Amino acid sequence: MNRHNATAAREVRLLARSGALTGPTANLAPGFVQANLAILPRDLAGDFLLFCQRNPKPCPLVGVSEAGDPMLPVLAEDLDIRRDVPRYRVWENGDLVAEPTDLEPYWRDDLVTFAIGCSFSFEDAMLAAGLPVRHIEQGCNVPMYRTSIQTQPAGPFAGPLVVSMRPLLPAQAIRAVQVTSLLPAVHGAPVHLGDPAMIGIDDIAKPDYGDPVSIREGEMPVFWACGVTPQSVIAHARPDFCITHAPGHMLVTDLLNRDLSLL
Amino acid sequence: MNRHNATAAREVRLLARSGALTGPTANLAPGFVQANLAILPRDLAGDFLLFCQRNPKPCPLVGVSEAGDPMLPVLAEDLDIRRDVPRYRVWENGDLVAEPTDLEPYWRDDLVTFAIGCSFSFEDAMLAAGLPVRHIEQGCNVPMYRTSIQTQPAGPFAGPLVVSMRPLLPAQAIRAVQVTSLLPAVHGAPVHLGDPAMIGIDDIAKPDYGDPVSIREGEMPVFWACGVTPQSVIAHARPDFCITHAPGHMLVTDLLNRDLSLL
Repeated sequence: MNRHNATAAREVRLLARSGALTGPTANLAPGFVQANLAILPRDLAGDFLLFCQRNPKPCPLVGVSEAGDPMLPVLAEDLDIRRDVPRYRVWENGDLVAEPTDLEPYWRDDLVTFAIGCSFSFEDAMLAAGLPVRHIEQGCNVPMYRTSIQTQPAGPFAGPLVVSMRPLLPAQAIRAVQVTSLLPAVHGAPVHLGDPAMIGIDDIAKPDYGDPVSIREGEMPVFWACGVTPQSVIAHARPDFCITHAPGHMLVTDLLNRDLSLL
Repeated sequence: MNRHNATAAREVRLLARSGALTGPTANLAPGFVQANLAILPRDLAGDFLLFCQRNPKPCPLVGVSEAGDPMLPVLAEDLDIRRDVPRYRVWENGDLVAEPTDLEPYWRDDLVTFAIGCSFSFEDAMLAAGLPVRHIEQGCNVPMYRTSIQTQPAGPFAGPLVVSMRPLLPAQAIRAVQVTSLLPAVHGAPVHLGDPAMIGIDDIAKPDYGDPVSIREGEMPVFWACGVTPQSVIAHARPDFCITHAPGHMLVTDLLNRDLSLL
């Protein structure tokens, strides 16, 4: 993966680092890969890494740190994971205990950082291909659903696959399969399309996370594995201690979306 | 495109050439590309070539001869288009006038041969990917339908797109889009999936060509552009003279299916 022309991404990180940016990162540093964040103590990191290996569609790893090391040079040379995300969530035994903008007081020398690809990248590719992304059109969050599809468990990490949904006309759905198949590092091809009940979704108008979007005449819902899956799985595992990003407040990396494409 | 290990394909052609083979070619010379055939007088060949250029999904050309030349060395070195297909159909003003096994008495020095990719190749790829092909399971012909999608006309050649249909579960349909997208020389990705009415198909149980197949619980019909389209378009244009293969009696080439794949 190339890293170049990374000024915009670095600028976002420096704003977060200085405390000037504490809000969501959608539309910031366009073209750059943004990542979901999971930070776990070393004694859980092995199982979580295995969980990601077994569930690459919801958990495509774009970077994993050394234990205790707050740097992640594979994603950006000067990245400091303790300060470069605008807002974090700190969890103890499954309970949210803080939403800091800086991890300095929480950092431990046994923490391992997992950066997980995010759908912002493939939505970029869909828009570039002329495909509609309804929740962007409607200015809301993508609708997400817990499904009846179970992830492959690893240690304490287990639970249902969470999917995101974008409505498309059939010919657009075929094009979207092509476009997103080339991006396995950010969830890849859809996991389902058509009848929501087949994957255990009873009411498409009531997402479990995010906002509902309108499905127009002739469109079918198309479902992708979602980066909320690992968060949901971690919440279910209730580790003594862990850190995630606050929803929408992503890690902005120096990787380019276009460099993730297989072709 | 490589040509090697072509003994099996050549054997089929030599059997047809000698008159020993006059039946369908399905399952003969597995792995080799079989092609639809359209032979037209030179004064129509330019428009038909343009029609194929404008409609690459139903009319993917794998070879076009020089006018009057019965050889097609791009498909096989010793191929003689007048004798190497098991059975032909000869048309005059849109009427079927003969079904010979040899074109010797009909050949003219202004005839241009068009060889058009056929779904046998992508069905091979689907089976290799572990995907079901229902009409093969059921031992019948693939169901085909005239649609409300119009082809891009060229000269006298115009008319509706004809599609073939294979029922798949949604996850299989996604995989089938991936597999067949890599094979644009043999119709490529599906053109539609799901609701047949959206492309003007009123009754999925009543195909316009071929045989109906069962669609099982949870499956959706998946539609590909079909090589019957050019035949239907030629029938509609009613040229003074033309020749096609008899249905199912294809031209067996020395090209390998696997060499058609983009990846």
